[in-house]
This record gives sequence, structure tokens and C-alpha cells, in this order.
Amino acid sequence: MNAVKYFYASYQFSASTKSEAETLAQSIAVEQSVEMPPETVPEEFKSYIAEVSELSNIGDNNWQATIQFSTALVGSDPVQFLNVLFGNSSIKPNIKLVDVDRSFLSKICDGPSFGISGIRTLLKAENRALSCTALKPVGLTPAHLAERAYHFTRGGIDIIKDDHGLANQPSAPFKNRVQSVVRAVRKGEQISGKKTLYFPNITGSNSEVLDRFKLVTDLGADGVLISPQLTGLSIMQELAAKSELPIMAHPAFSGVFVNHPSGGIAPELYYGLLWRSYGTDAIIYPNAGGRFGFSEELCTKINHQCRAKIAGLRSSLPTPGGGIDRKTIPGWLEKYEKETIFLIGGSLYEHPSGLEEAAREFQQMLHNDE
Amino acid sequence: MNAVKYFYASYQFSASTKSEAETLAQSIAVEQSVEMPPETVPEEFKSYIAEVSELSNIGDNNWQATIQFSTALVGSDPVQFLNVLFGNSSIKPNIKLVDVDRSFLSKICDGPSFGISGIRTLLKAENRALSCTALKPVGLTPAHLAERAYHFTRGGIDIIKDDHGLANQPSAPFKNRVQSVVRAVRKGEQISGKKTLYFPNITGSNSEVLDRFKLVTDLGADGVLISPQLTGLSIMQELAAKSELPIMAHPAFSGVFVNHPSGGIAPELYYGLLWRSYGTDAIIYPNAGGRFGFSEELCTKINHQCRAKIAGLRSSLPTPGGGIDRKTIPGWLEKYEKETIFLIGGSLYEHPSGLEEAAREFQQMLHNDE
Repeated sequence: MNAVKYFYASYQFSASTKSEAETLAQSIAVEQSVEMPPETVPEEFKSYIAEVSELSNIGDNNWQATIQFSTALVGSDPVQFLNVLFGNSSIKPNIKLVDVDRSFLSKICDGPSFGISGIRTLLKAENRALSCTALKPVGLTPAHLAERAYHFTRGGIDIIKDDHGLANQPSAPFKNRVQSVVRAVRKGEQISGKKTLYFPNITGSNSEVLDRFKLVTDLGADGVLISPQLTGLSIMQELAAKSELPIMAHPAFSGVFVNHPSGGIAPELYYGLLWRSYGTDAIIYPNAGGRFGFSEELCTKINHQCRAKIAGLRSSLPTPGGGIDRKTIPGWLEKYEKETIFLIGGSLYEHPSGLEEAAREFQQMLHNDE
Repeated sequence: MNAVKYFYASYQFSASTKSEAETLAQSIAVEQSVEMPPETVPEEFKSYIAEVSELSNIGDNNWQATIQFSTALVGSDPVQFLNVLFGNSSIKPNIKLVDVDRSFLSKICDGPSFGISGIRTLLKAENRALSCTALKPVGLTPAHLAERAYHFTRGGIDIIKDDHGLANQPSAPFKNRVQSVVRAVRKGEQISGKKTLYFPNITGSNSEVLDRFKLVTDLGADGVLISPQLTGLSIMQELAAKSELPIMAHPAFSGVFVNHPSGGIAPELYYGLLWRSYGTDAIIYPNAGGRFGFSEELCTKINHQCRAKIAGLRSSLPTPGGGIDRKTIPGWLEKYEKETIFLIGGSLYEHPSGLEEAAREFQQMLHNDE
């Protein structure tokens, strides 16, 4: 038999004694590999049972275990990889997945097809932070939405994404909406003299996502928005593999993974590293100071995981949204620096001089950094 | 304009005063509908802003709000329905989704294509609880797995599902595995003189799920296993719409939705009602007394939501797994009653007289109830 290859993942949990911690760590190893009593696994298949390779107390009753898994549990399947990392352990309220083997991750997943440099090239913006707004609210007709997009584009905004609540409602049927907005953006660019990218929301059932991706490509959109926890993460991989349009991901329906006090997945791992690996070029996450309770320290960690150099995986643009308005951009820019897309929704719509002026001011603040 | 139609959903959260509770309830209504300051929504589109229709204190600092949404936010899209129910609110650690309008749900979702009576017909078992086991562990070759399935079938087990960790590993490539196991089950039925259903695990990337569904149908499997939180819930709807094979769902990667202390989705709503609505014929959930911490009271609530009569939605078979061994079946049967699939994995493999005898004893205990 060939030598078995391994990858590791790390988990945190609480336990009041070392012996309790050892038992817990061992139970994760079994649960996430063979999922049956080890003594019932036939001798010649025991290499499939994962092993605890490290266990350390990280303060008080908190422990971190690193577990070594046989790569044969996964094969080359990115969905099965998530299952091995956290399938049944997701059901235990006391186990948090905190780290994953980057070298294996980059073998299993292809990462973004554009990445930071790809999006910068599309925008011809090599050396500054990028601006993004959301086209909203749901209920508006395609003509109304297109008018808003036109004004944002005249103001020179970099990216217009659909609100994640725009689907295929009767008020603005999908094709009609995308057609109208693409046209408005192309017209607005004639005035602004610069590129604006439009990312329609293609979230839907699996076959709809694929159909809509093709349709928006044909209609001349510049990227797509998707909520991967509504569709399953792996569809982003399928779309990224086409290398046709950049993918921006929205955290709708994903929050329970990252706001769990004692379980779930560490947010910087989930948004920063996993979404990136599964093909996301721009990762929207709930910014500090907004209505979702992330700290600045946590946001900085997410930013780092989006951008960190990992052999074989392009980097992603962190896209903090919420808690930013057009006046506080300079402060955020200083903190997060230029490899960032700043997403502002509500506060642009409140600008007393209208959307075009709001976008122009927003854009100006980013250029100040050049 | 036509009269606007509505549906409702209910959320629980904590707040120390009534006025704080009102503010929170109102913020959920806005977040889950227009997601922008209400004053920035043009007058003619204000009907899209959801409204708090009921707010009550449910003890101590706990509150429940019922929110009325315009059906125009959803159209006829089951993915967008999940987004409206809990998209951004999933990111708030203090908001739990606890109830959903059944009459609207049954309009948006088609439910199971077989349901309890459909699975009973396949098994010719009209009046007793059903037995299920898991084919495992990962690492075994197709021949080994098939041998195990053969013995379970000879013992007369009702359903053999793949372990949710069997994907397309080199140790047992998907097609080869399914072919071998189907053959073994059909051969075993000749000895047992009764039907045994085999449900291979088809979880994978979106295109793989569809390909594998077709393949296992062609190969003569009797149903499929899928982990919907790995694939996205809506793919079950696509598969159920074919009405070809029953679907059993596994909770891998879904636990964070239901084990969140103050957020997430009430488990009986998530597993019982939502998975059922999205097309699941048999719903595996972590049973009380096992290693996942659900209470008997909670399991009974899940069972109820799986089976409750809802116009336009077939019922699902609750499939408690974990915490059951071949000796404790009579007690569980008394508690959960016969509209149940009992899933036993580990303890059958530990039976001193082997798998066939283990399955026979298991089956006998269910027949005692007739």
C-alpha cells in the first residue's frame, strides 16, 4: 500500500480537565472520519480513522485540537471536504472549526478566477480602494432601478451590485432588470469616462443559477452576485471554473456559521479562507460598527485571510458592508487599506444632492489615497 | 393596483423593555424586506416594507414578533423565500426564526414526491415503524460494502442508506459502489423474501448531484441520500419534482442552524417543516440520548412537524438517528410511534452474531408493534 497522505484541521472546545479534552478531541476525529466505534472498523481500514496530532490548553477551560485526516476521506471532492471538516460536528454546540490546512485546500479548491488583480484590471484601478453600492430596494421596476444605476455610474462608482433581495420578482423580472441596468450603466460610463461594473444577483435554484449566469454573460453584465449559503458553496466553484465573470458573494443565510458563541466556524476562516477557496473574487461581510456586531479586530482578520498569499489560490477582495457611510470612509480606509472594496448602501440613498453626487464624493475619497 | 397579499413569519429575541422589543421587531421587518432606511423608499413602493403584526412578551426578557411580508418580495421562488425569511437576520446572534406561514409555504414549495404513504407502498409496510441502517465505514471497497448490504438485506432491514461520508473516494468510486450494492441488495431480497430499499449518498457539487441522481435511477437504486445544507436546499426540490426516487436528508453541515443558543432557526421548524417542504421524504435528525444533545421533547416536536397535515404538502418520515441501539428500540417506539424510521448504525455493527442477525432482531422489534 502507498504511504497515506494527510491534511489537518483545528477545532476549539471547552473541557474542564485534560482527560475530558482528550476524549472530546478523539471523538471529533472519529465523528469526522469513520463515524463508528473504532473497534468495529476492520483492521486493514484503520488508516481511515483520523488522529489527534496536537492538543493544547489555550486558556481557562478552552482547548484546541489539531486533527490529522487521511486525504483518502476526501478524494478530490470539495463538497466532501466540507463534510469531513465539519459535517456532523456542526451539530455539536461546543465545537468550533478554527483552521484548515492551506496546502490541501488549494489542491481541492481552485479559488477565484479573477482575484484582486483581475478585478483591478477590469476597472483599470491598480492602486486604490474600490467603491461599491447596492441597487435597491426590491419593488422598483427595471426602469427605476436602471435610472438609479445610471446616476451612480455618472458619479463614477466602481461596482454596482444588485441588492441580495432582488431575485425574479414580478416587479422586476430578472432578464428585463439585467438588460435595463446594463444599458444604463454603459450609457452612464459615457458621461463618467470610466468603467463601472454591474453585478446582478443570480441566486436561485441550482439550474436557475447556471441559466442566469449564462444569460447575464450574454447580456453584457460584468460579474455576478451570489449568496453561497443559499445555493451551496460548490456552485461558485462551477461558475469560477468558467473564468467568464467575477463572483461577489453575499452572507445571506450564512450568519449562523459565524455568530455562534461556542460552535460554528471562525468567521475569518469561513468568509476569509473558505469562501475565497470556493471561488469568490469579492467577499461581502458584515462590517464592524454596523448592525451585525463584528469587531474591527475580527474584520481585520477576515481581510487578512482574503488577501494572504497562498500558493495556488488567487486572493479575494474583502468587501465590508454595513457601518460605513460616505463620511467615515477615510477612517476605514486607514484601517483596512486599499486592497478593499467598500460597500455603502443606505447612506448614499440619503445624500441630499442625489445619487450621482453621492457616488462622486464616495469615489473622490478613495482617490485621495492614491 | 391589486390588493397586496401577505405571508407571515415569527421571530424570537430578547429585549429588556417593550420599547426596545418594538424597535428590534421593526428592524427585522425592514432588514428582511427593503433593507434600507424606510424613509428612503419611494412612496409608491412602501407596500414592500414588511410590518410587525404582533409582538408579545413570552416570559422574562423574551419576546416573539410576527411579521407580515408582501408575497411580492418572494414571487414564486423557494430560494428567495429562505432569503426573505432569514437572509440577513441569520447574521444577528439574537434573532431566532421560530415559525412560518404554512399556507404560503405550501404554495412556494412542492414538498416530498413520495411522502410517508409513498415509502410505505414501496416497502409494502403499511402499519409499522421502519428500520434503517448506514453502510459504512468509508474506506471499504465496493465489494466489502456490498457484502455488508447483502447481510443486512438477508436480515430483512427496510432501508440501507450510505454513510453520509461515502462520496466518490478512490476506495469505492461512486458508480462501482452503487452497482455492487444494488446487486447485493437484490440478491439478499431473494433470501429475506421482502423488499429492502437502498439509498446511495449523492451529495456533491450541483452538477454531480443531478448526474448521480440520474445514474442511480438507471442502476436501480431505490432512493437517494443527500445533505441539503452542503448542496443548498433547493436542489431537493429539483429532484423531488422528477417524482422518480424518494429523498432522505442528512443533517451534515446543518447543525449551526439549530443548536444556536439565541439565534438560528427552531429545530422543529428547520428539520421538520422546512426540509419537508423542500422535498424530503425522510428526515434524519440527531436523536435524544445520543451524542448531539437534542431533548426528547424537541424530537417529538420535530416528529410532529414532519407528519402534521398541511394542505398541499405530503408528510415526511422522521428518521431519528443516534442514541438508539437494538435494545432500546421498544422504548423509542412507544415514545415516537410507528410513523417513524429508526436509524441504527454503530450498534448493529457491534452485534456479536453479525449483521444479518442484528438486522433480523431490529426488524422483529418493529413487527412486535403491529
